[in-house]
Amino acid sequence: MKLDRVVLRHLQMEQKSPFSTSYGTFKTKDFILVEAIDEDGVSGWGEGVAFNVPWYTEETVKTSWHMLEDFLLPLSFESPFEHPDDLNKRFSFIRKNNMAKAAIEGAVWDLYAKRKGISLSRALGGEKKTIEVGVAIGIQKTTDELLRIIDKYVAEGYRRMKVKIKPGLDVKLIASIRKHFPTLPLMADANSAYSLADIDLLKELDQYNLMMIEQPLGSDDIIDHAELQSQIQTPICLDESILSVEDTRKALALGSCKVVNVKIGRVGGLSEAVKIHDLCKAQGVPIWCGGMLEAGVGRAHNIAITSLDNFTLPGDTAGSSHYWERDIIDPEVVVKDGLITVPDGPGIGYEVNRRMVDYYTVETKTYRGR
Amino acid sequence: MKLDRVVLRHLQMEQKSPFSTSYGTFKTKDFILVEAIDEDGVSGWGEGVAFNVPWYTEETVKTSWHMLEDFLLPLSFESPFEHPDDLNKRFSFIRKNNMAKAAIEGAVWDLYAKRKGISLSRALGGEKKTIEVGVAIGIQKTTDELLRIIDKYVAEGYRRMKVKIKPGLDVKLIASIRKHFPTLPLMADANSAYSLADIDLLKELDQYNLMMIEQPLGSDDIIDHAELQSQIQTPICLDESILSVEDTRKALALGSCKVVNVKIGRVGGLSEAVKIHDLCKAQGVPIWCGGMLEAGVGRAHNIAITSLDNFTLPGDTAGSSHYWERDIIDPEVVVKDGLITVPDGPGIGYEVNRRMVDYYTVETKTYRGR
Amino acid sequence: MKLDRVVLRHLQMEQKSPFSTSYGTFKTKDFILVEAIDEDGVSGWGEGVAFNVPWYTEETVKTSWHMLEDFLLPLSFESPFEHPDDLNKRFSFIRKNNMAKAAIEGAVWDLYAKRKGISLSRALGGEKKTIEVGVAIGIQKTTDELLRIIDKYVAEGYRRMKVKIKPGLDVKLIASIRKHFPTLPLMADANSAYSLADIDLLKELDQYNLMMIEQPLGSDDIIDHAELQSQIQTPICLDESILSVEDTRKALALGSCKVVNVKIGRVGGLSEAVKIHDLCKAQGVPIWCGGMLEAGVGRAHNIAITSLDNFTLPGDTAGSSHYWERDIIDPEVVVKDGLITVPDGPGIGYEVNRRMVDYYTVETKTYRGR
Amino acid sequence: MKLDRVVLRHLQMEQKSPFSTSYGTFKTKDFILVEAIDEDGVSGWGEGVAFNVPWYTEETVKTSWHMLEDFLLPLSFESPFEHPDDLNKRFSFIRKNNMAKAAIEGAVWDLYAKRKGISLSRALGGEKKTIEVGVAIGIQKTTDELLRIIDKYVAEGYRRMKVKIKPGLDVKLIASIRKHFPTLPLMADANSAYSLADIDLLKELDQYNLMMIEQPLGSDDIIDHAELQSQIQTPICLDESILSVEDTRKALALGSCKVVNVKIGRVGGLSEAVKIHDLCKAQGVPIWCGGMLEAGVGRAHNIAITSLDNFTLPGDTAGSSHYWERDIIDPEVVVKDGLITVPDGPGIGYEVNRRMVDYYTVETKTYRGR
Repeated sequence: MKLDRVVLRHLQMEQKSPFSTSYGTFKTKDFILVEAIDEDGVSGWGEGVAFNVPWYTEETVKTSWHMLEDFLLPLSFESPFEHPDDLNKRFSFIRKNNMAKAAIEGAVWDLYAKRKGISLSRALGGEKKTIEVGVAIGIQKTTDELLRIIDKYVAEGYRRMKVKIKPGLDVKLIASIRKHFPTLPLMADANSAYSLADIDLLKELDQYNLMMIEQPLGSDDIIDHAELQSQIQTPICLDESILSVEDTRKALALGSCKVVNVKIGRVGGLSEAVKIHDLCKAQGVPIWCGGMLEAGVGRAHNIAITSLDNFTLPGDTAGSSHYWERDIIDPEVVVKDGLITVPDGPGIGYEVNRRMVDYYTVETKTYRGR
Repeated sequence: MKLDRVVLRHLQMEQKSPFSTSYGTFKTKDFILVEAIDEDGVSGWGEGVAFNVPWYTEETVKTSWHMLEDFLLPLSFESPFEHPDDLNKRFSFIRKNNMAKAAIEGAVWDLYAKRKGISLSRALGGEKKTIEVGVAIGIQKTTDELLRIIDKYVAEGYRRMKVKIKPGLDVKLIASIRKHFPTLPLMADANSAYSLADIDLLKELDQYNLMMIEQPLGSDDIIDHAELQSQIQTPICLDESILSVEDTRKALALGSCKVVNVKIGRVGGLSEAVKIHDLCKAQGVPIWCGGMLEAGVGRAHNIAITSLDNFTLPGDTAGSSHYWERDIIDPEVVVKDGLITVPDGPGIGYEVNRRMVDYYTVETKTYRGR
Repeated sequence: MKLDRVVLRHLQMEQKSPFSTSYGTFKTKDFILVEAIDEDGVSGWGEGVAFNVPWYTEETVKTSWHMLEDFLLPLSFESPFEHPDDLNKRFSFIRKNNMAKAAIEGAVWDLYAKRKGISLSRALGGEKKTIEVGVAIGIQKTTDELLRIIDKYVAEGYRRMKVKIKPGLDVKLIASIRKHFPTLPLMADANSAYSLADIDLLKELDQYNLMMIEQPLGSDDIIDHAELQSQIQTPICLDESILSVEDTRKALALGSCKVVNVKIGRVGGLSEAVKIHDLCKAQGVPIWCGGMLEAGVGRAHNIAITSLDNFTLPGDTAGSSHYWERDIIDPEVVVKDGLITVPDGPGIGYEVNRRMVDYYTVETKTYRGR
Repeated sequence: MKLDRVVLRHLQMEQKSPFSTSYGTFKTKDFILVEAIDEDGVSGWGEGVAFNVPWYTEETVKTSWHMLEDFLLPLSFESPFEHPDDLNKRFSFIRKNNMAKAAIEGAVWDLYAKRKGISLSRALGGEKKTIEVGVAIGIQKTTDELLRIIDKYVAEGYRRMKVKIKPGLDVKLIASIRKHFPTLPLMADANSAYSLADIDLLKELDQYNLMMIEQPLGSDDIIDHAELQSQIQTPICLDESILSVEDTRKALALGSCKVVNVKIGRVGGLSEAVKIHDLCKAQGVPIWCGGMLEAGVGRAHNIAITSLDNFTLPGDTAGSSHYWERDIIDPEVVVKDGLITVPDGPGIGYEVNRRMVDYYTVETKTYRGR
């Protein structure tokens, strides 16, 4: 494969529901859309998942653009390569900056599959025809309101509910939900809000039969989670602290978790995501694909990786209309009975709608290999 | 304390000896110099230690500037604060980006000490009047050449020698040095060049009475190092994988190392460095201060932190003339008999030479609190 | 009319023949392509004619972008307007920067005509169905070579030849051409290479029956040209020194020229160009449309303005293939028997080829009215 | 002379009195300060007079920076030169952009004089020891208010009053002033607010014995002014339409004015200003130096050029404290009895106060010759 040029676009899309973080509430999602074009004019698409503000990881839209422009694109143009994995290796001396790496690598994976004439799902080794979808629900004003929302999503067929917990809003909340929905596939997302000092409290959750509790301790921690997991029955799922297959190996060795949330951007791309999948499968550890409020291209990548067989738990990848008035792909991602059909066309299997891309774009730069 | 304005300067200084990394060889050092000016016109100085290329950590000059401009300076101007530690807390929702945080926090620490009329050393709790200095030696063409250089530094009075090792250039090299210098305080820096598969080889080093081996395994690893330390006698020193006092606590708990290299920028600033110092002191673990090819301002910060009593091992902080034709402070940092005198004037205790700063500056931007 | 957004694109197109100026030789043409999109999603197109280097006028691609971004686009979004002329008035307190003004005004003219469902030619008051085309020939190594080229263009049907003259390469050259082509419609372009001290030399040209001599004196001069025209018979044509209808009025009043070269960008847009056309027509002064190495969009604007009836002399607007491997419009501009057919579709009458635009684009920014 | 580096600084200074233009009212003055440093470390200073908005000429701070960075500084570093005039020639193929050229040329003139050990005044051929100062008064709410202000300035010793006129506020206003101040040296600034259709009105002003009327017609006009001057007795002074000695020659030849306002930036630098001075002197035409709200460096250049003997009319160059709380030079410019003493120290003769420069600077970039 030989890249002719890469187009970076900065898109800004208004979100249907504003999104709250420790830094503030965001009404728009800013992200980088990567288009990698080969010598034959074929385009592959990738989506950067860094936000404008480094509240989830240390990366932002600006750091990603800088890494792409100054290091990753020059390395990509340096010489032809056989397989996306080769690019992954070429990037290895660049420390972290995983979301930037994943953005260009994702475009190259799409291109690779298109050139082979196969779907990205198949190129990655996926075999599922449909994937199960769960839904993540933000903090609500009252518990009654939350219960009403769960009711609605159950009716829509979602396969798993994720609710946020934090000190002061945890055991009671979960108890209330369980009272109304005794058998609902339910998980709690703790977003690093607890420490080892909260072990007794976290133990209380054991009685509610949660599918898992996500990242209860430090965002870069593997070690304390091992201590915690040894004392609670609810399976721990790690998110922020798993950046690579090496991290996964260590977490499993220490017993830090029983489930892994795989986000393609966080682990540096599809090549690494596949390795994590394979390792977890070999050790019998279930995994699922987390969401980063992706637009259509990123969403398509999530669908493709989720088609691998060890993604046995429903992921966060809801339909386009859950997030956007109008997505950037045709057709949009549609959820039916809690399932998304894995497309079987070449590459990501969705057409990028250039008209919508233009509509959302605020800045574009083209980089050439010559 | 209330900041009136902050001046960020991008400096470019030619190095006496070109510096080699996995990315290539650099003849110049690019860095950010931070000047924080309070309402009374007093200036505090900090130095960003990120390089132009993310080969040591994920940060660069550009990512640091972005973090300062878009997040850290606005947070610093938001409201007055009592103590530099308060700023550290205010930054806490910004993930990592430790070098950017340390750059502004360092300037504020200098300002804080100047306003109190005391030295930065004293403000941090330092009591030493002099600090011991070691030297780090790059890879040489022949072992004979390396031995000659060691001879020279011994004659100059340096208190510790650090040599680089890597697969193929390790046991034999150390053996040769020990043969000629049986009692020399000697350490080996492995820069993550090994994996757990190399345990047998690393065990062989035990016979040479090294002070320590630095970061033999993965740059973000604490867990594998615990396994390695349990099997070798040479003390392991961790560098890249210690980003906070929390990391330090875990590494000591797991037994991952017996020595810690504290770099102010890597751990996010002086406030965190003091916490690491205190924890290690309480556990009887010796520490030392690593170098990042700092110019005078960063060097002065290193000297101040090294004056704390648990910095019992010689650090990398050599004299100005070891690196630069002309440093940016007056007087320059001078090493005599392997010792540097800790200055007792207010703040960093060196005068910033604005003429030299202007000479090396390529770009400046001023940010105001109003 | 109400603009929803404007997209500025920086295009870089390789030229078939490198282009030489006093600053150096250029192999690529850089320019700004303006797309103005109204509330109904209709796009109008304009092309900035400033070069990268201010050798022809004081403007460049960068100054144009700055004027558009900081002044002209905000003024365009400020409130709806009835007619492109209104925009022209709104820009009036911005001194000069004519090429920047013409770029956005041109896009608005295209949009205006499309909304009316008429051709840009008709919107401007043009009635010609075809326009005559001349050709401009650069300096050649030998006179023989030049004669050969003229022969070729005569055979292709071009209606007028323009050759460059300069001190040392003037009377003899023209004499040679006339000897071989006694009745050829021939003009000389002097590009401000002479001064009033050269009057005797310029008088010698009178015997060769030139259609005109273009801008023999200073690039901002109207006054000295009046003195010169009073002493020579060859009609003078002014180019660089005519920036407005006011300049035209003064030049005609002083007798500084007998012909005017109208370049849309140089005079600040189509609205001003129409005024110049009307004034010259009223005074019986023939005009023609000069070229700025335009790509397809600018070329289409030139064709539209040339369709007005007082453009009685052949212009510089050759076919697309004369300049580019592949132009950015469909169909390309084609010259047949020295004539171009004025398109009668809505607006500029050519379709912008977004694929080719993307191919040549190096940077894009989108500006919104809200 | 050989330049080692040039530092461009963007300064932003708050004005004592907000400044009104056709674009809006400005509370701050933004400008570029140029520091040119030669091989021996000697600094010469120049000041760009372009505003942020192109309301006076087509230039802005941004266009000036672009011209300096991309063209004028590379040309300045290209090779050593003997005299500032040489630089002026080297810039000749860059069209207009006079304020950008004057900014670097001014710094080089200061440097040139300092290297010779003489004052800039002497280097330019100036011999006056003091210069006379006039004052320009903005439009006031009532005529009474205006009369009070004139009274105050007369008492302070200013040598000439300039008042603004415009249609509706002209003959009556001047009549009122003359009634109270029959012999006051008075001039009217019309800022291109009139056209030839207003001749009768402008003739009425003849009875009030004005020193001159400044730029009554178009900002780029020389020709209509000739017609006007032939019909009125009040001397016309040209400002905006004189960009060079060539323009001056033509204006004098046509009889377009009887006085010339020389602004260094508008004419492209001191070298051209001296030529205009010499031409006007030879033809017995008085000149004076106009102001652009300069800070201390630009003000010092104005003082130096005004020391040439044909600057027989008081200029706009008031004292520093008229404009700024604190100027950027030591000592500040002081007016006593309507006079400023021309400094006789080397170069501009004032010390640049680096502390104040730093205080006002928002952005700095350093350019090097190597």
